Amino acid sequence: MLDALFRPRGVAIIGASTKELSIGNVIIRNLQTYGYKGNIYPINPTAPDVRGIKAYKSLGEVPGEIDVAHIIIPAKLVPQAIEECGKKGVKAVIINSAGFSEMGEEGARLQEAFLANAKRHGVRVFGPNCQGIINTDPSLKAYCNFTFTYPEPGSVSVVALSGGVGALIMQALFDEGIGMRMYASNGNACDLSIPEILRYWADDPGCKAILLYTEGFSDPMEFLETAREVAARKPVLAMKAGRTEQGAKAASSHTGSLAGVDIATELIFGKTGILSFQDEEDMVRAAKAFATQPVPAGNRVGIITNTGGPAVIATDVLVAAGLEVPKLSDASISRLKATQLPQAALENPIDVVATAGGDQFRAAVEVLLEEEGVDSIFINFVTAPFTDTHEVARQIVEASRKGKKPVVCNFMTDLTQERYRITMEILKDGGIPFYATPTAAARALGALARYGRLRRRDIGRPETFAGADAARARSVVLSARETGRSVLSAADVYTILESYGIPVARWKAAGTPDEAAAAAEAIGCPVVLKVDSEAIDHKSDMGGVAVDLKDPAAVRSAAEGMRRRLGSHGDLKFLVQKFHPGGRELIVGASAERGLGHLVMFGLGGIHVEVLKDVVFKIAPVTRVEACEMLDSIRAKTLLDGVRGQKGVDKDKVVELIQRISQLLADLPEIREMDLNPVMAFEDSVVAVDGRIRI
Amino acid sequence: MLDALFRPRGVAIIGASTKELSIGNVIIRNLQTYGYKGNIYPINPTAPDVRGIKAYKSLGEVPGEIDVAHIIIPAKLVPQAIEECGKKGVKAVIINSAGFSEMGEEGARLQEAFLANAKRHGVRVFGPNCQGIINTDPSLKAYCNFTFTYPEPGSVSVVALSGGVGALIMQALFDEGIGMRMYASNGNACDLSIPEILRYWADDPGCKAILLYTEGFSDPMEFLETAREVAARKPVLAMKAGRTEQGAKAASSHTGSLAGVDIATELIFGKTGILSFQDEEDMVRAAKAFATQPVPAGNRVGIITNTGGPAVIATDVLVAAGLEVPKLSDASISRLKATQLPQAALENPIDVVATAGGDQFRAAVEVLLEEEGVDSIFINFVTAPFTDTHEVARQIVEASRKGKKPVVCNFMTDLTQERYRITMEILKDGGIPFYATPTAAARALGALARYGRLRRRDIGRPETFAGADAARARSVVLSARETGRSVLSAADVYTILESYGIPVARWKAAGTPDEAAAAAEAIGCPVVLKVDSEAIDHKSDMGGVAVDLKDPAAVRSAAEGMRRRLGSHGDLKFLVQKFHPGGRELIVGASAERGLGHLVMFGLGGIHVEVLKDVVFKIAPVTRVEACEMLDSIRAKTLLDGVRGQKGVDKDKVVELIQRISQLLADLPEIREMDLNPVMAFEDSVVAVDGRIRI
Repeated sequence: MLDALFRPRGVAIIGASTKELSIGNVIIRNLQTYGYKGNIYPINPTAPDVRGIKAYKSLGEVPGEIDVAHIIIPAKLVPQAIEECGKKGVKAVIINSAGFSEMGEEGARLQEAFLANAKRHGVRVFGPNCQGIINTDPSLKAYCNFTFTYPEPGSVSVVALSGGVGALIMQALFDEGIGMRMYASNGNACDLSIPEILRYWADDPGCKAILLYTEGFSDPMEFLETAREVAARKPVLAMKAGRTEQGAKAASSHTGSLAGVDIATELIFGKTGILSFQDEEDMVRAAKAFATQPVPAGNRVGIITNTGGPAVIATDVLVAAGLEVPKLSDASISRLKATQLPQAALENPIDVVATAGGDQFRAAVEVLLEEEGVDSIFINFVTAPFTDTHEVARQIVEASRKGKKPVVCNFMTDLTQERYRITMEILKDGGIPFYATPTAAARALGALARYGRLRRRDIGRPETFAGADAARARSVVLSARETGRSVLSAADVYTILESYGIPVARWKAAGTPDEAAAAAEAIGCPVVLKVDSEAIDHKSDMGGVAVDLKDPAAVRSAAEGMRRRLGSHGDLKFLVQKFHPGGRELIVGASAERGLGHLVMFGLGGIHVEVLKDVVFKIAPVTRVEACEMLDSIRAKTLLDGVRGQKGVDKDKVVELIQRISQLLADLPEIREMDLNPVMAFEDSVVAVDGRIRI
Repeated sequence: MLDALFRPRGVAIIGASTKELSIGNVIIRNLQTYGYKGNIYPINPTAPDVRGIKAYKSLGEVPGEIDVAHIIIPAKLVPQAIEECGKKGVKAVIINSAGFSEMGEEGARLQEAFLANAKRHGVRVFGPNCQGIINTDPSLKAYCNFTFTYPEPGSVSVVALSGGVGALIMQALFDEGIGMRMYASNGNACDLSIPEILRYWADDPGCKAILLYTEGFSDPMEFLETAREVAARKPVLAMKAGRTEQGAKAASSHTGSLAGVDIATELIFGKTGILSFQDEEDMVRAAKAFATQPVPAGNRVGIITNTGGPAVIATDVLVAAGLEVPKLSDASISRLKATQLPQAALENPIDVVATAGGDQFRAAVEVLLEEEGVDSIFINFVTAPFTDTHEVARQIVEASRKGKKPVVCNFMTDLTQERYRITMEILKDGGIPFYATPTAAARALGALARYGRLRRRDIGRPETFAGADAARARSVVLSARETGRSVLSAADVYTILESYGIPVARWKAAGTPDEAAAAAEAIGCPVVLKVDSEAIDHKSDMGGVAVDLKDPAAVRSAAEGMRRRLGSHGDLKFLVQKFHPGGRELIVGASAERGLGHLVMFGLGGIHVEVLKDVVFKIAPVTRVEACEMLDSIRAKTLLDGVRGQKGVDKDKVVELIQRISQLLADLPEIREMDLNPVMAFEDSVVAVDGRIRI
């Protein structure tokens, strides 16, 4: 269906206007100027023609077929216009008009009204309150949009709800000399959605990479599922704005408030293999490399430079982007010695020196293409006045073609000078992505390498552990719900955890101090005694927790004390639990995220969570690989391995625990929040010693 | 003196060449093309003229005065050439030739030789192995350089040892449409140094801002002292490359290895008020704002936008750069209501909507200029086709002129279109700095605001605490040195600390277990017993420390145990010290940095240093303000205030301790490394309980 929208054979403009610079005129001008190969049908009740093209009083009068109709009329007239589109057999409408859901209730009702008409007739709606689409395909040249940039045809497609940022990205591609394939900015997106467009572009052989700008998703799960498919087929480069509200959140120990709405988009990007950017210019410049270069097989880069300082800058940026600048093999160094000028530095970076000509650059590129220890090539090329820069550019292009490693160039010159513009054209025509500064070039190669890591990473499938007793866990949740409890009792929490094979400190519920003493006897001292009451929030601050009780008598006496102090909170019950001293405190938590299932959290307990905010999140279900990534991405990760005589923890068991929590969450979507805090981790075991679940 | 170099009335080119594209030809071409107003004297033994200018066989034949002589001849001929320059009365030479200290010993000897000649004749040397200088002053137009960019005159001056990066910055300024004042790239810098150039530019009324690129300093202290003076007078924007080696260091608990050479440059920038950048493009773009805009009085920004998404991006970047986006006053909102279109959003950001014209932009700028709650103005201006963009630009320019707040603009358009190029010229001529993306524009305003914070910050003078007994401390150091000890004994360390009023846990040295017991009696239990021996490195791992000894008998018995276990390490001595349990562990350290005095380190002890690397450094002497900044800039700073029932520490006493350490270091430059680890900090006191000093 999206063929009709993105490859329209006929376009009507309902609201075509003879007034220059009005949207109903600009769209026609754009179709004309850009060279649209299909038919243009202006619809205007009075004018005989618009911009020299015969106009029609109504859609019904149009002789040919209409794939797309622009609608640029007052909002309240839109439902009727769609009705007419339906009757005419229009396949898709682009509603440029505003005044719908973005303007409050009345607008939202109008939106529902026209959408109902559209559904009845099978007309797809793009927008409303939107720019439109562009397809640069030379056989079509459909510029169904009122923006002002006329992009070169190319292989990068752009999608953004926000027209302002969409246009900005399109312009930045143009400024960087990067061709564009298709463009879509769909405003309110009441029908045709970004996931649907992404899926269409995944199938478009002319599209090599997709750029996406977003401020969040109305249906995060739909996006996640689509993005996973699409990103597996071609690079999706994305930028999410609205990051700083998230920064302002954080702070509490609750999973829910540590993981705000905004964290989720980045987590979706991470889970699906979308390459995330925080600077629109970086994203566009990376696209320049993606449009022509292969993805590097690894992180090792060889650097060629004809000047010192810019190579230092590039090295800084490349290393910060996760690349390595390895030593070259002896064979490579010998080959360099045979081909480079005597003053050249034959290491990595290879300094071919300012006087190097085409032969030296060519030889250096060839050496790096054959060097097994290098996966990509970075070139600093400053155009010294005494150098034949055309020849250098030609040799870089020719040599690069012979290999399968990406080549990215920092081309430092003055493009207002004719001579250097020609040099630039040689690089451009040769498909070598180049940038005006070493930092910009290094970031672009860094993005390619980062994408390479994403492609090589296989997060695998979520594991399902045998022996999980989902029915038992579910019955606990259901009975809590039936009795109107949203916070589960400790006994309920431990029962659910045990149903999923999650190790829990051995525990017994006790109604009285005597029962507590008996429970301690059964469990074996030392034990912990806790009051078990929803009514008491911060148990340990309230004196409702006693640790390291060495014998049943001590347990009885502690329980009696709690009764005295906390009896006013109602009929106190107790929980007696095996005491596990030592070990490393961990926290594993989860929170339900609107439209996305659960986020799972992992961190070290105590100050690591509350003060240092050193916690990580993943979207459930969490695979084994993802759980390992969680352990590996906290700042204090070396504490898990043990430092300065302290023992490390059994990381495999922690990873398994996270996965079991993930399985539990998949079976129990009712859970809104859960915390295992702390989980005590030892050299050969882990055990949850306190937990909280809210449904 | 530098007038002769930067404002030469006559320039000789020793090594002038008739060969196109050779340096001896290009420099003459550049002088000609750029329109040099002084006299050009090519020196060439055979050619009668070079590029149409009469050539001279030798300097002696030149009729006029020569302020600057370029030297572009083989290295071994340079000493003689300088001799001739001296005889002719040349004031400064720019030695473009290479082959000196950068090429090893023989080159270094040549460098010494020509430098001796230069000194004898009072000739100043710029270079060798360098590009040269440029002065764009329209009355002079001195392009004494072989680069290819012809900068517009302006108010930003550029200095870099590295010619490649210098040229890159000059080109980037040119590409951004930013005028340049002077340029200097002095290669090996054997005589004329960057600090000398900075001091000269500080006095240049035509220079509004200085851009500096560096990879480190040969004399960091000279740079620090100069930079402090210069940065107090005008903005110095700087970039240091070679950052990642430092990143690769870190790791140990030693002050010395945590603070590598590379950390020092950033610390110098911080101490002197130089604005540091990590991206050359960001630095150049910031210069565009510094060239025309005032420094904001505070961090509060008002945002005007005619499209939604780019304002979201700008807000993210501005907030990340430390700006606030405050609510507007009721008065401002009323004024906006009266002047803006009905669809406009009257908050901050102010969305004037896409159809806003010059009147709406003007009114919005005026409101923000008068709004007391706002210190700077950010404008997103996307050129919608239906807008009179010239008028918008004119109104922005006119309104901005009336205020004293900086205005920075994101101007989103297609500059290949004539119409929008005119709009851009209006902004440019009106002195409004503009950028193609919201991120770039917001970063530039962020840099202005960051500079504003630096200007408002007064680090004050280092304090000198009365009662310090420098003589006593010095005698301890001297006697250690005399006996050939580089690691001081614990008793020496505590004596030095006490000499500077640094609180130390009460201690006594003891030669035998009996003496140790007596010392415990005198100090009062509980105490700590430590062996005091240089020969034993990790005392506590070796069983050489016993804590919390409750009575003298326990002390005697512990000391006897240590004698048995560690007696093989020689004649054991002991240290008995008051035991201070609880409290927060801190570490305060120092290390001597080549050419820069000492770096002082502060952090929380234990894992905060070793695992989390959460430590900060300052260059000594550390003022009270700087010490407060140290406490405030560790990630775990809230631990100092106390969290979750744990008590905070007496921050004033910690600040004083850091300052006293700083005073001690100023008096004892012999100290190469020192660590107080830990310092125990309590709610109302601090006390050093272990220390180490290496001289």
